[in-house]
Amino acid sequence: MSEFMLKMEERPELKDPVLIEGLPGIGQVGKIAAEYLIERLKARRFALLHSYDFPPQVLVKMDGVVESMRNEFYYHRGGSRDLILVTGNTQAATNEGQYRLSEKILDLAEELGCSMIYTLGGFGVGRNVEKPRVYGAVNDEGLIHSLEPLGVVLERSGVGHIIGASGLLLGLGSLRGMAGICLMGETSGFYVDPGSAKAVLEVLTKHLGMDVDLEGLEKRARDIEKMTAEAAEMEKRILEEMGALTQPEPMPDKDQMRYIG
Amino acid sequence: MSEFMLKMEERPELKDPVLIEGLPGIGQVGKIAAEYLIERLKARRFALLHSYDFPPQVLVKMDGVVESMRNEFYYHRGGSRDLILVTGNTQAATNEGQYRLSEKILDLAEELGCSMIYTLGGFGVGRNVEKPRVYGAVNDEGLIHSLEPLGVVLERSGVGHIIGASGLLLGLGSLRGMAGICLMGETSGFYVDPGSAKAVLEVLTKHLGMDVDLEGLEKRARDIEKMTAEAAEMEKRILEEMGALTQPEPMPDKDQMRYIG
Amino acid sequence: MSEFMLKMEERPELKDPVLIEGLPGIGQVGKIAAEYLIERLKARRFALLHSYDFPPQVLVKMDGVVESMRNEFYYHRGGSRDLILVTGNTQAATNEGQYRLSEKILDLAEELGCSMIYTLGGFGVGRNVEKPRVYGAVNDEGLIHSLEPLGVVLERSGVGHIIGASGLLLGLGSLRGMAGICLMGETSGFYVDPGSAKAVLEVLTKHLGMDVDLEGLEKRARDIEKMTAEAAEMEKRILEEMGALTQPEPMPDKDQMRYIG
Amino acid sequence: MSEFMLKMEERPELKDPVLIEGLPGIGQVGKIAAEYLIERLKARRFALLHSYDFPPQVLVKMDGVVESMRNEFYYHRGGSRDLILVTGNTQAATNEGQYRLSEKILDLAEELGCSMIYTLGGFGVGRNVEKPRVYGAVNDEGLIHSLEPLGVVLERSGVGHIIGASGLLLGLGSLRGMAGICLMGETSGFYVDPGSAKAVLEVLTKHLGMDVDLEGLEKRARDIEKMTAEAAEMEKRILEEMGALTQPEPMPDKDQMRYIG
Repeated sequence: MSEFMLKMEERPELKDPVLIEGLPGIGQVGKIAAEYLIERLKARRFALLHSYDFPPQVLVKMDGVVESMRNEFYYHRGGSRDLILVTGNTQAATNEGQYRLSEKILDLAEELGCSMIYTLGGFGVGRNVEKPRVYGAVNDEGLIHSLEPLGVVLERSGVGHIIGASGLLLGLGSLRGMAGICLMGETSGFYVDPGSAKAVLEVLTKHLGMDVDLEGLEKRARDIEKMTAEAAEMEKRILEEMGALTQPEPMPDKDQMRYIG
Repeated sequence: MSEFMLKMEERPELKDPVLIEGLPGIGQVGKIAAEYLIERLKARRFALLHSYDFPPQVLVKMDGVVESMRNEFYYHRGGSRDLILVTGNTQAATNEGQYRLSEKILDLAEELGCSMIYTLGGFGVGRNVEKPRVYGAVNDEGLIHSLEPLGVVLERSGVGHIIGASGLLLGLGSLRGMAGICLMGETSGFYVDPGSAKAVLEVLTKHLGMDVDLEGLEKRARDIEKMTAEAAEMEKRILEEMGALTQPEPMPDKDQMRYIG
Repeated sequence: MSEFMLKMEERPELKDPVLIEGLPGIGQVGKIAAEYLIERLKARRFALLHSYDFPPQVLVKMDGVVESMRNEFYYHRGGSRDLILVTGNTQAATNEGQYRLSEKILDLAEELGCSMIYTLGGFGVGRNVEKPRVYGAVNDEGLIHSLEPLGVVLERSGVGHIIGASGLLLGLGSLRGMAGICLMGETSGFYVDPGSAKAVLEVLTKHLGMDVDLEGLEKRARDIEKMTAEAAEMEKRILEEMGALTQPEPMPDKDQMRYIG
Repeated sequence: MSEFMLKMEERPELKDPVLIEGLPGIGQVGKIAAEYLIERLKARRFALLHSYDFPPQVLVKMDGVVESMRNEFYYHRGGSRDLILVTGNTQAATNEGQYRLSEKILDLAEELGCSMIYTLGGFGVGRNVEKPRVYGAVNDEGLIHSLEPLGVVLERSGVGHIIGASGLLLGLGSLRGMAGICLMGETSGFYVDPGSAKAVLEVLTKHLGMDVDLEGLEKRARDIEKMTAEAAEMEKRILEEMGALTQPEPMPDKDQMRYIG
């Protein structure tokens, strides 16, 4: 492959689709939300994106089979608007890579007729959250009024940032004339957080006028949490021993509030 | 967009313009100074520069609307010489990106007939400063005598550095035959420092023979300070995490005093 | 040289060869295993690969002669299948470099008719290991059944990663239709671990139907251990400094167990 | 300029010249040695090399005039062999940049007929050194015998590395068929160390059969030391405050032994 490889498994005809992004990030909120939608709607995978900008590794699934680092595209037909969903096991690992990758995602979405983007993520607050609020950000002032009735928090006391694909898709999308909304669920930032993903999906589905059963999400999320608890502990231990490795892997300080898409 | 996108909103005809740069940096001194000039002179925005070399994020304003990371160009006509002002919400996030971006800024300035550059920044001293002095640096020995009568400190006890656009515009400008002056206001380095920006602008306006009312600066600066206090704290923490996302730039030569443009 | 330099010392004709990779990594398990095979089988070196993606340094051997950072290719004829072995004194030092380098290795292997890859490495567990088990990962589900009779551990309690060439060769190989198995010997992660390399080679040689005397490995390994103890300590410290010279690779996805190839 | 700019001020005809490299590094040993030779021999500057691979900054001299980050080439005629000397105010700041830059230096040296390289640097030992020994490394075994009579330490107890230009020029030079010797003076690694530079020059001049008065070196070095002491202290303070900057500057741990050319 060259630096990018987009493998089209199918080339769907979609009517006025919206793009929904849920890649890994803080609390895995966006990824859990996107994966739940894909499962629940039985969305169909139609493309895989590989890139040298991903971390130089592969993932090993629980049965010992490896999976390349990749982003995956799905579509769903049938609501008022068709959906394109993008998720995956990674974001880009370098600065310019984040830009290149977001452009590739937008290229594909645009090619399929998409003019509206939703990006999903967590809003880290550094403490446990009972009832997560959903923060919103838009790349077009005109979108604000449609979010206010849904209880989305738009005003904030200071300037902030949205780091990664959830931010760049809105910024780069705007330069192409695509409207974009980022929905971020409050989350501690310490754990995988399906409760926050549920809060995000409640807003998203209402905004899209869709009716999706979200009850399964909490149960499924508790399962994931349980499965990864042991692994996370072990990883922590292994990471602590990795002093002698050629490639340093700085681990961003978790104990801080941040927006990460 | 490709790696760079220069969006010209207007193509002004300017007579013998000078370039004034005030991008984010220590104490936000340069940025505050440039923004104040733009506001006070009602300078007119004529171009936006986007780049993959910026941090992979967007900024979220207090109303929830996102802004792409970008540099902005303004012009002002009417003094003895026209002005081109460049400011923005970021500098480049990578080593080579800093070079590429400075070249883009110089390309545009040169195209508009500019042969003289002023770069503005802070000079961190690590303690609170009552009456900030202004340090100068020039890329042509012949410029020194014009700065001395204005009380600018040129001699220093050791060799130093100017990091980022404020330094590179002078260095790369020199290779194109453009004269350049960097003005750095003393600042603690701990806070956003409008008082230091005022000191810098006092020198700049005198050197340009302009008459600009700087009284509003301190008041406006106090307002900014208040508004950004919370945001700055949050941004600081985000930037610390960004250290893990962007590329560190080892500075092999350590036995020297540094400035930050 | 340009960014890569592949120096072919010979162009061997091989029949249905398999590629065996053992580059530096945790416990040096893969490298020790590959080097032992090369020595034991009197495999013949046929190519050297140099790259700007390697760390910007040279190695100094104990006699004061320097060696460029490089990967080395060997071949061996005579078993049921011919072997291509790749080892070296380094892996790539940057994110994209890891991808580019793995592709170069695959290019050469493919050119020589190879369609099957074995990658060897250590599996760090953070404690001393009496009898190291061997973990396996495959890029094709169909390969699992052939590993189970050899006592290889395939199932695990959580998702993991294989970082570096041992992982990427499987992932990128898969995109070319090449089958791949990664064998990882349990190791503390604190020391160079020839015992773990022996465990890995026991599985590898059985899987290949080869008969290789591994008794010499433990003795030789003890010698290496002794010789490299001081050097390893020094190298570890140098590598820690190199962390500041080379590019960190943030791994956004943290809630998972990792392996190192 | 594009990524590199080589500015030839003169194109000297040289007879069988050797290249001597002394760029910034540990204890500034190489740089001090090269600069002393240049001054003492009244060597003549003939080329400047600028690059985007240098740190994104300019240097400010004590009179307030800035100097671009750059490498400088000098020549000297008159000994048994002509000399090309390369020094400068920086090395490359990125991994690949180190490679690209070393190649540029070799390109120019080769073009001028050079087939022999000396690289000069410090060998950090982490404690004060009364009488610095000189360590040697060669890229051709045949060069060892010529160094032994000069008291150069070639054998060591373990494998090591030479990081940066002093290492790469030997490694990449070797791929072009150029012979190379690296001379490293023992130094604490904590301070600028002219005493170590003197030890290196004693070996170098003997090896070249040159007669250069080195007495001035210690005095001149003491002066430099005095001048930079204050500045170094101040820099340290400023660096400690730079927490809020966009660009992190990891400072390699000084308290460790290392070779840095």
